[in-house]
Amino acid sequence: MTYANTPFDQTEYQRRLEKTRTAMIQSGLDAIFVTDPSNQAWLTGYDGWSFYVHQGVLLTLQGEPVWWGRHMDMMGGRRTCWMSHVNIIGYGDHFVQSTEIHPMQDLAKHIQARGLGKARIGVEMENYYYSAKAHAVLTEALPDAELADATALVNWQRLVKSADEVGFIRKAAAISDKVMQTAIERAAPGVRKNDVVADIMHAGITGVGDDWGDYPAIVPLTPSGIDATAAHLTWNGAPMRAGEATFFELSGCYRRYHAPLCRTVFLGRPSDDMLRAEEAQLEGIAAGLDVARAGNRTCDIANAFMAVLAKHGIKRSGRMGYPVGLSYPPDWGERTASIRSEDTTVLEPGMVFHFMPALWMDSWGLETTETILISETGAAEPLSKIDRKLFVKD
Amino acid sequence: MTYANTPFDQTEYQRRLEKTRTAMIQSGLDAIFVTDPSNQAWLTGYDGWSFYVHQGVLLTLQGEPVWWGRHMDMMGGRRTCWMSHVNIIGYGDHFVQSTEIHPMQDLAKHIQARGLGKARIGVEMENYYYSAKAHAVLTEALPDAELADATALVNWQRLVKSADEVGFIRKAAAISDKVMQTAIERAAPGVRKNDVVADIMHAGITGVGDDWGDYPAIVPLTPSGIDATAAHLTWNGAPMRAGEATFFELSGCYRRYHAPLCRTVFLGRPSDDMLRAEEAQLEGIAAGLDVARAGNRTCDIANAFMAVLAKHGIKRSGRMGYPVGLSYPPDWGERTASIRSEDTTVLEPGMVFHFMPALWMDSWGLETTETILISETGAAEPLSKIDRKLFVKD
Repeated sequence: MTYANTPFDQTEYQRRLEKTRTAMIQSGLDAIFVTDPSNQAWLTGYDGWSFYVHQGVLLTLQGEPVWWGRHMDMMGGRRTCWMSHVNIIGYGDHFVQSTEIHPMQDLAKHIQARGLGKARIGVEMENYYYSAKAHAVLTEALPDAELADATALVNWQRLVKSADEVGFIRKAAAISDKVMQTAIERAAPGVRKNDVVADIMHAGITGVGDDWGDYPAIVPLTPSGIDATAAHLTWNGAPMRAGEATFFELSGCYRRYHAPLCRTVFLGRPSDDMLRAEEAQLEGIAAGLDVARAGNRTCDIANAFMAVLAKHGIKRSGRMGYPVGLSYPPDWGERTASIRSEDTTVLEPGMVFHFMPALWMDSWGLETTETILISETGAAEPLSKIDRKLFVKD
Repeated sequence: MTYANTPFDQTEYQRRLEKTRTAMIQSGLDAIFVTDPSNQAWLTGYDGWSFYVHQGVLLTLQGEPVWWGRHMDMMGGRRTCWMSHVNIIGYGDHFVQSTEIHPMQDLAKHIQARGLGKARIGVEMENYYYSAKAHAVLTEALPDAELADATALVNWQRLVKSADEVGFIRKAAAISDKVMQTAIERAAPGVRKNDVVADIMHAGITGVGDDWGDYPAIVPLTPSGIDATAAHLTWNGAPMRAGEATFFELSGCYRRYHAPLCRTVFLGRPSDDMLRAEEAQLEGIAAGLDVARAGNRTCDIANAFMAVLAKHGIKRSGRMGYPVGLSYPPDWGERTASIRSEDTTVLEPGMVFHFMPALWMDSWGLETTETILISETGAAEPLSKIDRKLFVKD
């Protein structure tokens, strides 16, 4: 075992294993096979851009987890995981993107060799990195095992952050602030959007002081004007224009931990409609923050925001946020609780959410968001120090 | 229909539809549902960082394709796809990451409404964006349809590039060169790796002249020293050190088209071992390029390289390359042909490969790669103008 390269110490990883095993026992699972790269990293420290091939972590109720992946990435496992090398195993390159054989056949052999051929094994049915084919092959290769859906079992254990994790997220938030300042300063009529994004990226990777920047799990989303009616457009090389709002949804990243943030910049004079919407949005965010307290529920935040919006006569439906922390592409959300009317997750100290009640209207978009920490007492703490307002550059 | 915002004109998209439909007929498919974001963009122009929720393109044997996704991303579809708005459809936000209902239930209704309830429909079983759960739900919701595995059906149609696509890849290659120059210039003992990567990112997004930079599908891979024995580590904030080799595997990106490139920089004086390996690698690449001709096969390239390596007494197994072009995270490869001994794909003019016979040794890594275009006549054309050598900064 070596914790030389992992972001956290032994205590933290043991805490995570214990929490996860308790959940496994509650679900009647002998083992889980975890493909979500964030879950892999959270349990073992594994860090590398290798999730485009099949890999994962096999965890039973005792002993070290086993990281399994492509042979060449086993070397990366040895550099980044805390387990003994015997628990970092690889499959041959001939399995990679073959149409004849499949890596899950190799995994099945390892599972059987560990006496788990008849076990009840949790798999992440709803995950980018566990394909329909992977499940079909694994099911066939383990005829006596029971593969049960354990989607988000590990993700839920990540919901309440340790003090160390909150420390990482605060560092990410400081990077987010630096990046946002860069975006706000650089935005001007005639400036190409990609040139603004180049500076955004540069600021994010440079980081703040000794806290170097990692790659965020989502690239900056930076649409302007009519494009900002769409939530997930990225950028192009067109110059920014007077009379348009641009939202900058982005995140700093410190050792895979995120603190997303969005601000909208208007070049010129915003319409009365937009100013009224901004007023409602800010009032709604304040109302949401005020009920984002330990003991309340995620839906309370959404409902508080919606009540303010309704008072201002603005219609808005849909999700308004999600937990954030450790993440890999393509999503910086944790995919467990949601800030929405239908979600009744009880808030606990140490939970961190991206509260993002954006307004995407017919001809423009207005997005002001906060990453918030649920506190021991009182209202949630927004981690950004950037003014919460529509930035108008006239 | 509007081609105002798409990267290519109507002729190009019609060419793609025809090719794809021919393949569908050969496979006996009435329709395909395509989740690979690269395939979606290739067929419809759709471009947005929304692939972290379920979305896809439904294509039958006639008429326009249908882009289906989250309601808020339907707005992005209207901004980026060429089809009529009636063929860009969305599902409600209550489906997103719900544990009660699943977006595939919504898709199934649209499929049935189009008279495809009993059709033979191809799905991409082996894809990041078609989860095991998605397949299970869709199968259950379409009890009378036959879901057949059509993994890579569209990817294979992308293998031979049109002249317009080659033009885009050349632009990406020029960006890659600019980025690589930046990396080589900036690498020096004492410089933090993340500061080098910040400049790399900046150069890549700035682009070259009017050719603005898009985000590559993989972030820069930049490991040094012992970390370079692993293929897919990213970066950290440690200063670069004398006596170590660092490889920079990266790609410029022009409107989602890639031209990956790798060069290795040694700070100080490389060992004789490394110099001998570099000599073998360069000779092997030249041998590979020489047989990378229309009519030859992908395995010929691999075998030519391996023969040179064997002559120099170096062992190397595994894949040595893959086709590249239009891509979204997490992979800039197209996942069809491979440059490896077992692969017998016949080379045709217009194919573009990342030929990457990297050497990952016990205590260091050496990676020199080229994006190559299969020509009408003669050997393949490497698209980079960067010297092909180990860069030694003593």
